[in-house]
Amino acid sequence: MNIIRHSPGKVLSGAVEYGNLVFVSGTVPDNPDADIRAQTANILSKIDAVLAAAGTNKSNVLSASIWVTDIRNRDQMNEAWCAWIDPAHPPARATVEAKLADPRWLVEISVIAAK
Amino acid sequence: MNIIRHSPGKVLSGAVEYGNLVFVSGTVPDNPDADIRAQTANILSKIDAVLAAAGTNKSNVLSASIWVTDIRNRDQMNEAWCAWIDPAHPPARATVEAKLADPRWLVEISVIAAK
Amino acid sequence: MNIIRHSPGKVLSGAVEYGNLVFVSGTVPDNPDADIRAQTANILSKIDAVLAAAGTNKSNVLSASIWVTDIRNRDQMNEAWCAWIDPAHPPARATVEAKLADPRWLVEISVIAAK
Repeated sequence: MNIIRHSPGKVLSGAVEYGNLVFVSGTVPDNPDADIRAQTANILSKIDAVLAAAGTNKSNVLSASIWVTDIRNRDQMNEAWCAWIDPAHPPARATVEAKLADPRWLVEISVIAAK
Repeated sequence: MNIIRHSPGKVLSGAVEYGNLVFVSGTVPDNPDADIRAQTANILSKIDAVLAAAGTNKSNVLSASIWVTDIRNRDQMNEAWCAWIDPAHPPARATVEAKLADPRWLVEISVIAAK
Repeated sequence: MNIIRHSPGKVLSGAVEYGNLVFVSGTVPDNPDADIRAQTANILSKIDAVLAAAGTNKSNVLSASIWVTDIRNRDQMNEAWCAWIDPAHPPARATVEAKLADPRWLVEISVIAAK
């Protein structure tokens, strides 16, 4: 099976496709001065684009890893998350607290999807 | 290949099956006032149930992610872990420290299993 | 499909092979008194050996999870990372901050590879 890399850069690829699996990199917000709800919505729209480039979509997300810089903000993150996911097809998920590379980022999300 | 979701909720599914892989969500303890050893044992018994529902078991766990809220408690967590795993079939694993959604939870575990 | 475990121990296997996927455990440095650049290089050489034992190599890494104990050290970690990866085949990746089991360890890396 071929390995297909999307948005390859010097450090990482935005996503890597292998067979029927798509591994999406930890995705960070383009609106770092927004609140966590808006940052999450922004990240999820970026993941939509990555999944589309790999020929799949959010209904096929198998598993998500979410890091928030303050676990007490989880509810606001979840508002954007629940507005995004296909309610008939919720992925597996784990959410923990971690500091992220830019102190303004409040959330980072990576997913594994089927295609 | 079909995607099969187990215990789907508003936010996430307890596990997602795809082909021969089962992605189990970050699983947290139902006994939050117990010590980390008992919390770990509780989580692992919950994972047993999830794996059984997906038609597999702990001998087929490929990889585990473990978060503990205080890495110095790792040895007590490992006691429950080592009592649980099939000693002939230890999974790959990574364990790091992270704050979790409920401050009483001392450990959270997610796994990827074969079936 | 068979599950093949490499370097199985009491707690975990160094890597677990299943079909065309190889799950490598969170790998830590053997040179804990070195700086993060040297620790990262050491970890990546250990991952090379694990991947070789599983019949694959760094060009087939699909996804990497990296934990650093101080996210501000990310640039030095990335120097060793960028010197290691196959520049034509960068993996997906997520990097966050986390405390690790030995306070001298500054970085831990796990990967999923194709074979």
